[in-house]
Amino acid sequence: MLTVSRTVCFSAAHRLHSPELTDEQNCAVFGKCATPGGHGHNYALTVSVTGPHDLKTGMIVNVTLLHEVLLREVVNELDHRDLNTDVPFLRGVVTTMENVALVLAHRLEEPLAAIGVRLVRLDLAESERNKVTLEHA
Amino acid sequence: MLTVSRTVCFSAAHRLHSPELTDEQNCAVFGKCATPGGHGHNYALTVSVTGPHDLKTGMIVNVTLLHEVLLREVVNELDHRDLNTDVPFLRGVVTTMENVALVLAHRLEEPLAAIGVRLVRLDLAESERNKVTLEHA
Amino acid sequence: MLTVSRTVCFSAAHRLHSPELTDEQNCAVFGKCATPGGHGHNYALTVSVTGPHDLKTGMIVNVTLLHEVLLREVVNELDHRDLNTDVPFLRGVVTTMENVALVLAHRLEEPLAAIGVRLVRLDLAESERNKVTLEHA
Amino acid sequence: MLTVSRTVCFSAAHRLHSPELTDEQNCAVFGKCATPGGHGHNYALTVSVTGPHDLKTGMIVNVTLLHEVLLREVVNELDHRDLNTDVPFLRGVVTTMENVALVLAHRLEEPLAAIGVRLVRLDLAESERNKVTLEHA
Amino acid sequence: MLTVSRTVCFSAAHRLHSPELTDEQNCAVFGKCATPGGHGHNYALTVSVTGPHDLKTGMIVNVTLLHEVLLREVVNELDHRDLNTDVPFLRGVVTTMENVALVLAHRLEEPLAAIGVRLVRLDLAESERNKVTLEHA
Amino acid sequence: MLTVSRTVCFSAAHRLHSPELTDEQNCAVFGKCATPGGHGHNYALTVSVTGPHDLKTGMIVNVTLLHEVLLREVVNELDHRDLNTDVPFLRGVVTTMENVALVLAHRLEEPLAAIGVRLVRLDLAESERNKVTLEHA
Repeated sequence: MLTVSRTVCFSAAHRLHSPELTDEQNCAVFGKCATPGGHGHNYALTVSVTGPHDLKTGMIVNVTLLHEVLLREVVNELDHRDLNTDVPFLRGVVTTMENVALVLAHRLEEPLAAIGVRLVRLDLAESERNKVTLEHA
Repeated sequence: MLTVSRTVCFSAAHRLHSPELTDEQNCAVFGKCATPGGHGHNYALTVSVTGPHDLKTGMIVNVTLLHEVLLREVVNELDHRDLNTDVPFLRGVVTTMENVALVLAHRLEEPLAAIGVRLVRLDLAESERNKVTLEHA
Repeated sequence: MLTVSRTVCFSAAHRLHSPELTDEQNCAVFGKCATPGGHGHNYALTVSVTGPHDLKTGMIVNVTLLHEVLLREVVNELDHRDLNTDVPFLRGVVTTMENVALVLAHRLEEPLAAIGVRLVRLDLAESERNKVTLEHA
Repeated sequence: MLTVSRTVCFSAAHRLHSPELTDEQNCAVFGKCATPGGHGHNYALTVSVTGPHDLKTGMIVNVTLLHEVLLREVVNELDHRDLNTDVPFLRGVVTTMENVALVLAHRLEEPLAAIGVRLVRLDLAESERNKVTLEHA
Repeated sequence: MLTVSRTVCFSAAHRLHSPELTDEQNCAVFGKCATPGGHGHNYALTVSVTGPHDLKTGMIVNVTLLHEVLLREVVNELDHRDLNTDVPFLRGVVTTMENVALVLAHRLEEPLAAIGVRLVRLDLAESERNKVTLEHA
Repeated sequence: MLTVSRTVCFSAAHRLHSPELTDEQNCAVFGKCATPGGHGHNYALTVSVTGPHDLKTGMIVNVTLLHEVLLREVVNELDHRDLNTDVPFLRGVVTTMENVALVLAHRLEEPLAAIGVRLVRLDLAESERNKVTLEHA
């Protein structure tokens, strides 16, 4: 299988805090990630897609189109925002890497179909050492 | 499964242009990648291989041998070349990442077999943000 | 001149907003960096110091000691914090890279003297592409 | 499938030398990696785990807990050590990347189960260009 | 002294060839860099500037403005171009890193003055291992 | 001033231990870096040189020549070696970054003069976070 991957970055604030936990539990579970003022990261999102290999153009997808989808659906919505308060489609979501990755994968489904590809893998890193990966069977 | 990966780099010029498209179509599809003078990249190729784990040496493959194959078959042929005009085995190929990856995977098949391993995965990146991945079932 | 450099990272939220400007002016000057909810970064701080070269140990400074100073004075104070609201020694400071660098250089002066070195250069990066550098004559 | 990955680094010496080979064979097989004095690397270990997605916390695993396991089981044991002579659980092992990866995967099995996750993938890099990957079916 | 640095990238083709040398001399001096078809790189340009520190905004320069200058004067002119043939202000210049750096520094002088800063240092890298640096006294 | 920089890497073992200190003092000063078996790093050496700018070739120095000097004088001597025991010109030197940088700068003086340039700056990093820099006035 052949996939094409594109990476975009965005800088955002967030805070780990679950409304289903008491303040004490939030502290115990999330530690310094629960500090009320929040903290932030330079996030890197890599989206890997596949689809039919167009023999005329030699491409599965035009990376420029893929980039435009990621700018419109992700960067323009999350960059220089507070993930907990400023992003309509993250409202009510505990902004762990796991949850943000799942929400973004869902959000990208249709726009990726519209340019003729489907999501195979999504990597969301909040630093060079912490990452989640979502793989579709 | 255990795989061994080795990365090599090469600097090459290329231009996206399909002989099956009109000039107008080439411009529409490939945008600035179709500029007649071409452009270029520092490409990074990572080859991941597997094979029997030799218990005496503790190795699946001697990375030095793997590196020699990649130097001979890839770097010596593509580094400081124009992929569209200077590489015999890319003649007639639209030099998208997808096509170059497929051609390189095919080209490496026998030399990798000759050192006792088979290709499991090939990553070809034309920048830190654009990449294709070819995975063998 | 011989200098020793040590890099530490911290993840923090911040927002660019000057109390001496109207809301309109803040928006005009800082653009998306002024979004009320704030945003954040993985900051990288590199501190370069010099001092007498101890011929017995071969060192200008023990990097472990230097690291401890940076952990105590910088990382423990800024990591997983909101720079605008949670850090006593940044209170009232517009949290541009320039200002944060100046404040940190001042804050590190004495602790560095205490381990026998002086600050020659301080690099503060808020991303791989944005950085300030403070050099002492 | 959703996985969480954490990377840790350690600096260690090692030497490739198999007791089942003669000195001559060791030289022939391992080349400069067999130099008696040994050499060393800044190793990077990335561990990818999965498990049930806790809907209250939004996490598969608390990265802090995962990090503590890696510090205790790997970094504290291997960092600033000679892999051939100083690490009890590597005694008698030819310290190729392949073997070290297999030993570490085995060693991490129980501690990872104890924090509720299982190992899906382990990447061990001895440099930016050389890596092994162990994937569990 | 306090400087602000911004990095931009561009992918371009080039070829080292001096009209003042014979073909033989060009080959002898430039080796594989003189291949007629040319080759290419992902270039990284870092511009470091200084100026008065505005106490109201806390900034020496708004990085967004600095970025716009670099996009307009450098990236839009060089990205996805052949430096030898497609760039009016490089016509007749042997496109070594040294020469390109000098031309870019000269070209940026006025636009940087127009946003209130002056160039202190310019780094131009054609790969992670090759770089030139121009420093102004 | 215009400088050209070239980076090379080498993997080596070393151990911090001063013959002028007792075992106890060595432990106190160097901590885990004094472990008898030693440890190791992937070192990165960046050499920055200047010289007359040749207007015919557009170069201060041919990077290929500079690279050959670094291979011959540094990489071939230090790569896959134990810096404490295997390198004649480091015998008796406590192998701190400071000392190794000073020895390498001295060693490179003549070979760099032979290709028409002089050393302006030398950076020796033993990891991404630890570095020494030697600057010539």
